[in-house]
Amino acid sequence: MRLSDLGEDALVARLTRKLPRNASLLVGPGDDCAVVGRRSDAVWTLLKTDCVIEGVHFTGETDFARVGWKALARNVSDTAAMGGEPQHALVTVAMPPELDVAKADALYKGLRRCARKFGVAIAGGETARSPGPVFISVALTGWVERARCVTRSGGKPGDTLFVTGRLGGSRAGKHLDFTPRLREARWLTEHFSLHAMMDLSDGLGADLPRLARASSCGFELGELPCTPGCSQEDALSDGEDFELLFAVHPRQASRIEKTWPFRNLPLTRVGVLTANTKLLPVHGFDHFA
Amino acid sequence: MRLSDLGEDALVARLTRKLPRNASLLVGPGDDCAVVGRRSDAVWTLLKTDCVIEGVHFTGETDFARVGWKALARNVSDTAAMGGEPQHALVTVAMPPELDVAKADALYKGLRRCARKFGVAIAGGETARSPGPVFISVALTGWVERARCVTRSGGKPGDTLFVTGRLGGSRAGKHLDFTPRLREARWLTEHFSLHAMMDLSDGLGADLPRLARASSCGFELGELPCTPGCSQEDALSDGEDFELLFAVHPRQASRIEKTWPFRNLPLTRVGVLTANTKLLPVHGFDHFA
Repeated sequence: MRLSDLGEDALVARLTRKLPRNASLLVGPGDDCAVVGRRSDAVWTLLKTDCVIEGVHFTGETDFARVGWKALARNVSDTAAMGGEPQHALVTVAMPPELDVAKADALYKGLRRCARKFGVAIAGGETARSPGPVFISVALTGWVERARCVTRSGGKPGDTLFVTGRLGGSRAGKHLDFTPRLREARWLTEHFSLHAMMDLSDGLGADLPRLARASSCGFELGELPCTPGCSQEDALSDGEDFELLFAVHPRQASRIEKTWPFRNLPLTRVGVLTANTKLLPVHGFDHFA
Repeated sequence: MRLSDLGEDALVARLTRKLPRNASLLVGPGDDCAVVGRRSDAVWTLLKTDCVIEGVHFTGETDFARVGWKALARNVSDTAAMGGEPQHALVTVAMPPELDVAKADALYKGLRRCARKFGVAIAGGETARSPGPVFISVALTGWVERARCVTRSGGKPGDTLFVTGRLGGSRAGKHLDFTPRLREARWLTEHFSLHAMMDLSDGLGADLPRLARASSCGFELGELPCTPGCSQEDALSDGEDFELLFAVHPRQASRIEKTWPFRNLPLTRVGVLTANTKLLPVHGFDHFA
């Protein structure tokens, strides 16, 4: 059997079975970040890794400064989705020996720009030879106050579902220049008690079922806020929006809308979590399909 | 200019200039691990990332369980080289969709085996599609008592240089089955005050000059302990030995030899650090040459 026969979610479920854990691993594989610490600690550590690959996430013609930005920004978005702040990054880059040094320079320029913007220190890394595509893997540590840590699994039937920003259109270039919603997530976890949150990396159509499943809920979906020029279908399935999806008690929903201070970023009710766990067949990006 | 014109050390020096840092980054890029914490903390955090790539570190015919072992063991070896213990791993794997699921299973089997052997919890990871080679990047956190943390930069002229084990012969398969010298490093840092330590990943010929340079020293090299069937030249330049290289005050050298409790692992004086920083032209593995 090939990976493509299995599909991404089934592959991940298969590979993450029986992984060695320890007592300090509070949240393991399957959420936006792993959470490490003692239950009683006031501040927990967040751990996350993600990668971007030439021929999958970008091409040889893409501006490598934007690729560097994206490689780190994806991880920053994941720490935001847990309600936390990023801290230290480790950068692994595999490049073919014939690559122009100027491209490697540009890649690091983008990484540095993203790191400075979000207060990340680049603590180390690894440079290796690639026999083909350029490959960038970034691991990121972060922290979150225990009381502000939000996972995917705390959603409850009846919760209101919100997304930030507008969805769809990543292929037109947005996926290289997105701003992780760190400020917005920190504001949300400072003022509200969110039940569940994640960032949208594979499209709402793939990601919302993951949040619902983790929360043992189903969902109903209304109209989505679309990037200009995009259809509802694009908004569901383009992927790489890197907007926040979160679930809150319906009593908090109006107050969030009324006090939302980010004038340039829409906040939209897109649906509700339900007790009926029979999920609608909506689809986002499957890496192995 | 191409990466291959620049060479690995010059490339790394170029890319790690001007990287954003912060106050908690005590040791940044250039050592076996990054060290994070406050100077006054009793225990510091170690951070490390490393990767193995099909067509560079292994082939499609290699047993993927051994590849998985190696991918994590390389990082465990780096935490050992700082005098510390590994803790949580993040695993990034990029695979082509046509890969046999059994190979992905084997890869994770090897990762799990290594994790259990060295007390590592696998905290999370990322699975992505590769347009070509299989690519595995592992990030590892660890910890070390402040008093036992050993960097590359503390060597002094006159220090005795030791290596554990026998060098050379990695290409015959040793590089897939090596045992990180975690027990040995922990014993050393428990009983002795080492000046400098690193693990040998690119061969003594490339790695010793790095330790000497970091310590602002030169070195003189004697006879090396060779893997049976290997020449002195192989021992210098094959790479991927994953043995420890360390520098101690000559007064401690005899006591280490007399009390060394690891009967099956030789410990060999291979040279001394000198005040003359004009380095001998010895060469190990250059990833971009």
